Amino acid sequence: MLDFNTIINNIHNNLKHNVVKGVVASYIPELSKQDVNSFGIFMQHMDGRTFQAGDAEVPFSIQSISKVLSLSKAIAFEDNNLWTRVDVEPSGNPFNHLSLLELENGIPRNPLINAGAIVVADILCSQFKNPKEDFLQYVRDIANDQTITYNYKVAESERLTGFNNFAAANLLKSFDNLNNDVDVVLDFYFHQCALEMTCAQIAKTFYVFANSGKCINNIPHITVSQAKRINAIMLTCGFYDESGEFAFEVGLPGKSGVGGGIVALLPNHFVLTTWAPGLNAKGNSLLGMQALEQFTTQTNLSVF
Amino acid sequence: MLDFNTIINNIHNNLKHNVVKGVVASYIPELSKQDVNSFGIFMQHMDGRTFQAGDAEVPFSIQSISKVLSLSKAIAFEDNNLWTRVDVEPSGNPFNHLSLLELENGIPRNPLINAGAIVVADILCSQFKNPKEDFLQYVRDIANDQTITYNYKVAESERLTGFNNFAAANLLKSFDNLNNDVDVVLDFYFHQCALEMTCAQIAKTFYVFANSGKCINNIPHITVSQAKRINAIMLTCGFYDESGEFAFEVGLPGKSGVGGGIVALLPNHFVLTTWAPGLNAKGNSLLGMQALEQFTTQTNLSVF
Amino acid sequence: MLDFNTIINNIHNNLKHNVVKGVVASYIPELSKQDVNSFGIFMQHMDGRTFQAGDAEVPFSIQSISKVLSLSKAIAFEDNNLWTRVDVEPSGNPFNHLSLLELENGIPRNPLINAGAIVVADILCSQFKNPKEDFLQYVRDIANDQTITYNYKVAESERLTGFNNFAAANLLKSFDNLNNDVDVVLDFYFHQCALEMTCAQIAKTFYVFANSGKCINNIPHITVSQAKRINAIMLTCGFYDESGEFAFEVGLPGKSGVGGGIVALLPNHFVLTTWAPGLNAKGNSLLGMQALEQFTTQTNLSVF
Amino acid sequence: MLDFNTIINNIHNNLKHNVVKGVVASYIPELSKQDVNSFGIFMQHMDGRTFQAGDAEVPFSIQSISKVLSLSKAIAFEDNNLWTRVDVEPSGNPFNHLSLLELENGIPRNPLINAGAIVVADILCSQFKNPKEDFLQYVRDIANDQTITYNYKVAESERLTGFNNFAAANLLKSFDNLNNDVDVVLDFYFHQCALEMTCAQIAKTFYVFANSGKCINNIPHITVSQAKRINAIMLTCGFYDESGEFAFEVGLPGKSGVGGGIVALLPNHFVLTTWAPGLNAKGNSLLGMQALEQFTTQTNLSVF
Repeated sequence: MLDFNTIINNIHNNLKHNVVKGVVASYIPELSKQDVNSFGIFMQHMDGRTFQAGDAEVPFSIQSISKVLSLSKAIAFEDNNLWTRVDVEPSGNPFNHLSLLELENGIPRNPLINAGAIVVADILCSQFKNPKEDFLQYVRDIANDQTITYNYKVAESERLTGFNNFAAANLLKSFDNLNNDVDVVLDFYFHQCALEMTCAQIAKTFYVFANSGKCINNIPHITVSQAKRINAIMLTCGFYDESGEFAFEVGLPGKSGVGGGIVALLPNHFVLTTWAPGLNAKGNSLLGMQALEQFTTQTNLSVF
Repeated sequence: MLDFNTIINNIHNNLKHNVVKGVVASYIPELSKQDVNSFGIFMQHMDGRTFQAGDAEVPFSIQSISKVLSLSKAIAFEDNNLWTRVDVEPSGNPFNHLSLLELENGIPRNPLINAGAIVVADILCSQFKNPKEDFLQYVRDIANDQTITYNYKVAESERLTGFNNFAAANLLKSFDNLNNDVDVVLDFYFHQCALEMTCAQIAKTFYVFANSGKCINNIPHITVSQAKRINAIMLTCGFYDESGEFAFEVGLPGKSGVGGGIVALLPNHFVLTTWAPGLNAKGNSLLGMQALEQFTTQTNLSVF
Repeated sequence: MLDFNTIINNIHNNLKHNVVKGVVASYIPELSKQDVNSFGIFMQHMDGRTFQAGDAEVPFSIQSISKVLSLSKAIAFEDNNLWTRVDVEPSGNPFNHLSLLELENGIPRNPLINAGAIVVADILCSQFKNPKEDFLQYVRDIANDQTITYNYKVAESERLTGFNNFAAANLLKSFDNLNNDVDVVLDFYFHQCALEMTCAQIAKTFYVFANSGKCINNIPHITVSQAKRINAIMLTCGFYDESGEFAFEVGLPGKSGVGGGIVALLPNHFVLTTWAPGLNAKGNSLLGMQALEQFTTQTNLSVF
Repeated sequence: MLDFNTIINNIHNNLKHNVVKGVVASYIPELSKQDVNSFGIFMQHMDGRTFQAGDAEVPFSIQSISKVLSLSKAIAFEDNNLWTRVDVEPSGNPFNHLSLLELENGIPRNPLINAGAIVVADILCSQFKNPKEDFLQYVRDIANDQTITYNYKVAESERLTGFNNFAAANLLKSFDNLNNDVDVVLDFYFHQCALEMTCAQIAKTFYVFANSGKCINNIPHITVSQAKRINAIMLTCGFYDESGEFAFEVGLPGKSGVGGGIVALLPNHFVLTTWAPGLNAKGNSLLGMQALEQFTTQTNLSVF
């Protein structure tokens, strides 16, 4: 039987001394303050056991990892109606995400690229009474943790510098694929991305996707089929233009964020979270990618 | 010797009964109120003679024709420094102007596409003390006509619906190719495009480009070389992705606007303006294009 | 316990009366002769049981399904060296596969699009002594079936009309990513695609990927890790620009061909093959896609 | 009055000592043998005078300059029917000419990019009885010089290495925009590009375009209107993605070739040819571009 405790601690020990740790994201000024040496791993097994190493309980900015949570709630609201406004295909293109949006008449490639997540945010702005408060409550509920909160400084920092997201939202609006005002939707979106969570909290939150839609308290939040589909989207689209590489090297549904977090899961088995703020050239956590690769290589646990 | 009066009136008479007149632009709500039957032609010869037919003295929204005027002032301010921020190549692409901007790292293809004109507007916002007032005065001066003014309703109408321009400006900002605030630059830009002029006024204004940089009052505003270069840019880039077609069929430097105006000129000979609000599929005035084509075919007057 | 026999036969019965069956591929003249009413399903369980319905033992042209088999052999030859010449990312783009090849300097997006499969074919042309004969023997071996053969008419038909593949191969050559002559590589490639197999034969052949690299005779052909990676590539790239949709709706690694075949598999559980020559708008078998979707919906068997 | 003799010799003297001379094209092995120090200028005035400096009578490979000559003959054959198979818009894109061809369904952007010139070559292969012989005779006739010939080594060198042209021709064929066999059309095309001429010969040949369609012997070969249109196409499309720059800096219709030749003309005034084999980053003769820019700056002679 696999000794997850040893495996995770060995991986952590091996990697934490790496000289090359990637580059901390600087385009959101608040994020650039992160320490490149931070490094945590947390595993939540479906049988209830947990394993951890390093900074597994230090909160950080989850950024794009939040896109899976907003998607989950939007699917709960709209089920398959959602797919008239956003597609489920990998984007393929590293360099020109607005280009594809233009070529495809304002229908984003998938809900995990920025443009797609902005459409999802627009849906939540329409469906929620108090979008920011209600979404936070949703995350706290599936995490079974009422302490989770937004980092308002990070949200404001992104509002002041997120010109590319303003470009995407306005382009969506020009294609009539945004119902609320650009400023309203992006205010929500920047807060959503500014959620602050620990590796442990993220793992407990994503339990819902590994557990066929029921959260760690055993309360159903989405259907079995919806959970499977979200996992499929994570596998094919979760790592930008490195998604194929991640499926190939790691073989698990997952999602990364520029804050340095990565969450991956094996349905019915476990959720595994890493945090290391240094990013590789494609914007994914360098140590996190290596840790996950080593984990699946050593354990032979993957969907394939 | 060519009888311009007869030629212009014959062309006007032939075309005004056309059943197919194109479609009035509707994306700026205020513009959609234009009468598709409006049709004017005005010719300003360099020898002082003028010829006209139809609605040549009815003011209309000059829209993108204004891009040549803002470019002229920006070149007067910055001369060749301008070209570090915007290129002079035809855009070629009808369908994805933001795509090219992304692919080329925020350097617009040329100053006559929207993204390029927004960079030019940014320069004027930096150089002018009171951008909107000062630019209006510049146009009045080269036109030798102090009655020219903005249509504020049109400017406001575009501000409320110009999401694609907000997308472009934010994208430029994300590439660090916009020094002023997006709202400031676009406020200027929407006013610039909302200039209201008649065919006659436009012809007198563009006299400066046909006359080696000296306006109709013989005052130099730009150098000979700058005038030539602006003419070159009009010839290669003045009609969006129909620029090649216009050079091929008409053979004159020119610029169109979605208000239905077109101005074309033969250096040292004449400026010719048309206005007919119905547009063809590529966004250029349908009757105007035909009128200009007939004019150069009948007179054999072109740069080639 | 799931009654696969009933499930498969019910699906077959329900779908075979569909009025809308898609369109038989016509761009390879020989393929256009297929009967749109052909419809077979075959399931090879890892426990040895087999289930089938309809035309499960009628041979058809496997076309792009062969790309997985050539990839498998190329990986056996080159292991990870292969990935310097072809990437593993989904292509994303339906409409312009050569465009991406140009933009990315002759490195195909993945080995399951045509350009990528042509690079793989080039590798086999270099590695095999008698490429066509040796590759056929490889397929016969992993299928445990010496009767499998090429359809030479189909191969010749494609040679005479496959201009797009000649374009791709020449473009690869211009980027120095093809070592053998274009004609040599494409002759091999057209034969590879012209392999003729039944649903049953394909299922037995793909057993190797569901069984961690050991074929149905329990002989290892590739390593566990190589088998996982091939499954990952099938999941992310197996259905052209419908790959995300397939992962989302079906949730299994798989591959389609324009002959109307689809193969899908759940590692350690089963291989499932369908054949119905009518294609949907994206070039995948219309009934086959529906059959697989119904199968995973009814059985809840997917990697997610 | 302008002293062309002094102007041209001064320009030649100034530039011939330039340290930076660009890079001789190497992708066609035969061309790489050219001496980077070769440099000639020739001017044919419409009044009969000629002026020259340096290697103006040394033959070189005219390469893409030939595209204007084949276009001229195709227009003479087909007039405006030609434009159903090729467009007249600038290509705009440096990096992906096949991409545009794909996006635009096999209709090349204009007849001066390779794909467009291959369509033109296809037309000549259909219209001429003995394409290579008849085309050579056409060129000799408009040049009034029976000594012009193909360099067969260059043609063969390109046939062996011109994979990108084979890609383009096959892509055109896949879109049904090539009537003859790829090998037949490209054999013609490679010979056409391998025409060997001196600066003097090219200037005398292009006299036909500066003289409203009548060659230097006063024989009409194309109509006035056809000559004007060819000049328009040269101005907007003659220098690849540097066409806007050339119009902007030089302001004359013209065409360059990778052999280092450039021809430019002012209708009704003169034809000016330069040859210097070193190319700039965009594939146009470095000294040639500078010589033409200096010439129009000093003389103020341009279409603008």
